[in-house]
Amino acid sequence: MVLTTQTQVQSGNQSATLAEEVLARCRRLASCSEDSDGIRRTFLSPPMRDVHREITNWLEEVGAKVRIDAAGNLRAVYPGEGPSPPRLLFGSHLDTVPNAGAYDGVLGVLIALALLKDLRGRRLPFALEVVGFSEEEGVRFGAPFIGSRALVGRLDEDLLNTCDAKGVSVRRAIEEFGLNPAEMSDAELSQNAFGYVEFHIEQGPVLEKVMRPLAVVEAIAGQSRLEFVFTGRANHAGTTPMDMRFDAVAGAAEWITAVEREANNNAGLVATVGSVKTAPGASNVICAEAQLTLDVRHRENEVRTRAVAEMTLRAEEIARRRRLSVRHRTRMNQLAVPMDPFLNRQIGDAIRKTGVEPHAMVSGGGHDAMIMAEKIPSAMIFLRTPGGISHHPAESVAVEDVQRAIECGHHLLEQLSSSPASRTQTETRTRRA
Amino acid sequence: MVLTTQTQVQSGNQSATLAEEVLARCRRLASCSEDSDGIRRTFLSPPMRDVHREITNWLEEVGAKVRIDAAGNLRAVYPGEGPSPPRLLFGSHLDTVPNAGAYDGVLGVLIALALLKDLRGRRLPFALEVVGFSEEEGVRFGAPFIGSRALVGRLDEDLLNTCDAKGVSVRRAIEEFGLNPAEMSDAELSQNAFGYVEFHIEQGPVLEKVMRPLAVVEAIAGQSRLEFVFTGRANHAGTTPMDMRFDAVAGAAEWITAVEREANNNAGLVATVGSVKTAPGASNVICAEAQLTLDVRHRENEVRTRAVAEMTLRAEEIARRRRLSVRHRTRMNQLAVPMDPFLNRQIGDAIRKTGVEPHAMVSGGGHDAMIMAEKIPSAMIFLRTPGGISHHPAESVAVEDVQRAIECGHHLLEQLSSSPASRTQTETRTRRA
Repeated sequence: MVLTTQTQVQSGNQSATLAEEVLARCRRLASCSEDSDGIRRTFLSPPMRDVHREITNWLEEVGAKVRIDAAGNLRAVYPGEGPSPPRLLFGSHLDTVPNAGAYDGVLGVLIALALLKDLRGRRLPFALEVVGFSEEEGVRFGAPFIGSRALVGRLDEDLLNTCDAKGVSVRRAIEEFGLNPAEMSDAELSQNAFGYVEFHIEQGPVLEKVMRPLAVVEAIAGQSRLEFVFTGRANHAGTTPMDMRFDAVAGAAEWITAVEREANNNAGLVATVGSVKTAPGASNVICAEAQLTLDVRHRENEVRTRAVAEMTLRAEEIARRRRLSVRHRTRMNQLAVPMDPFLNRQIGDAIRKTGVEPHAMVSGGGHDAMIMAEKIPSAMIFLRTPGGISHHPAESVAVEDVQRAIECGHHLLEQLSSSPASRTQTETRTRRA
Repeated sequence: MVLTTQTQVQSGNQSATLAEEVLARCRRLASCSEDSDGIRRTFLSPPMRDVHREITNWLEEVGAKVRIDAAGNLRAVYPGEGPSPPRLLFGSHLDTVPNAGAYDGVLGVLIALALLKDLRGRRLPFALEVVGFSEEEGVRFGAPFIGSRALVGRLDEDLLNTCDAKGVSVRRAIEEFGLNPAEMSDAELSQNAFGYVEFHIEQGPVLEKVMRPLAVVEAIAGQSRLEFVFTGRANHAGTTPMDMRFDAVAGAAEWITAVEREANNNAGLVATVGSVKTAPGASNVICAEAQLTLDVRHRENEVRTRAVAEMTLRAEEIARRRRLSVRHRTRMNQLAVPMDPFLNRQIGDAIRKTGVEPHAMVSGGGHDAMIMAEKIPSAMIFLRTPGGISHHPAESVAVEDVQRAIECGHHLLEQLSSSPASRTQTETRTRRA
């Protein structure tokens, strides 16, 4: 027992140092930006080259072999034992939103790098591949996950021909970065990959609220995004009695409260009306048209679909009663993606070994792991996000939480190494419908 | 009885012809527009000169003496009996909103003209003055009632110095039209004016609903206009559980339904949220700020003020419960203006003589009569507006209703002529606070 404690202290010192380094490196990469007054790094923009150079140096120092694939993803392989060992992937994305924080995405890549460094040259029964995805946020082309789609073989012609605001296509951007789109198949996952693990900040307030540093992500929620338009009749705000109005805003308001109630009545469901636009939008004219967005998410597709149907029915009922009309259209319908149960149990155990209980939660946002899960067992570990603040310069993460994440990764690697079955045996292979 | 009926038929034929002419002239004046594809005639714009010329010709034909006062109002005096008889005013405005109909304002001036024509040179115990106000809508300078304010002595320096979108002041516009702002005092009401009567389309759906052609306007409603801003916190629509949100739109929606309920619970109260603006306004971000307009009107100031206070309290209660903040500011607070009871009774009797029951109602919109009531007993007669449609090219009025309005005016003049006391005796002199 005394020895174990000693080992833990030594390991703790090591991981603390690694965590400090991870955060320092995140901050250093934050200076690689398209904007001088904030962080902004979109798909294959010039600062991405600087990020690649820095990370490549750090990865090569720990014995990994680095390449940039045809989709602009940074791919680093740290060899395993034997001639052709199975391969475990770690990764996250290197692009950012405009006016971003320093940790969203990058942190996951640098924690993976820290895990390699932590091995100090030691070989595991499997190789490790660190992936820095070129694009996850969807900022430049309005289409997210360009990087991870290349790994699962879905960076297709349509996506390659999509253009940014300046008329530059994905294909052209790849060529201008000095890469060859014709080599896209080389970007696909190696046949021997048996799992993908992504560390990522939670970007929400839940872990802070439950006072836990780390979470196992059970699933990535499915999303429905819709647009609703209530139509009434514009009329004079002074001369039209209340009982002779066809007020689109009044109907929309009643519906928004119904949407909120529906979400509150379904555990785990979130529903958001983020935008309301009114026409003609004059203070003394009854509103003729109210246009609203609806975003509904849940880990279970059936719960989400039922909720959307219920909200749509309510809109129609409200419109009918108020003699308005309502129309809606679906802008996005994304199925929920469960994470791999075997990996999740292993991660849960690894978190427990760091001395804390893992929190189990659903990711409300999309992540590369959702795409990777189409092809290989995938899992995510969330790090507590102070104030839930993300996509903002004030985004942060505590060094103690990063330390625990590194320790979790360390234990996970040890567990998977000592349980050879784990390399190929996964109980569920999650696929995207 | 036979004779009376005969007289009525003759009078009916006469008023029918006059009504046809009134409508034809309204349509003719509609061609005097700043826009080639719609009606738009703002304060002292070039087409206003054409309108003045046409109306002046018509007025001079019936024996009235016409001038344009320093505020650009057309002023026509039809003499009465004796050297200095009292004076009764009729009028309405000659300006329009953009993309206007052909009857709002102009109709009231042309009905007054028809009443003069109907006299066929006969002198009454009082003179008649027809006023075509230069400005009522507030389009060009964002300040309404420029014309009638000149008659009550309130076209002050502040208003004269107000500029339009091109930087032209009211004063400059007056000068450019060939008038002299220094002569503004000549625009004021003559000392011997004893009343003002305005015919105007209702611009609402009430008369159509109750199936009456004409209404006596008991009062012009007071108006409160406010702006409310609910502030919450922007957050990720997917990662923020329902119970950890500070959703400004959800709070605003609850409040809009409360505003509507409050209006429904107070007879005669109208309350309108005409504009909602959301920030950041993204479909996948919880709304941080919702900015709303509130317009509340009622004939009784106390009812309106109490309702606004109640709505404000509700906003604060909702914000507190939802951990949002709310602020509001008052943009307009206009007291209700009762119309003159004596004139109203006379008008009611006159309408009855046309064979229909007068409807008694409150005007939800502002009118020149509201300004005139500051100085002299004033009254309004509303004409049924098909579909309640106004401020729109589809605005219309039935020729039979115009005929009845002319007959009502005819009877009103007869009544006031045979009751000399009426000329100076008014039971209430309404003043603006």
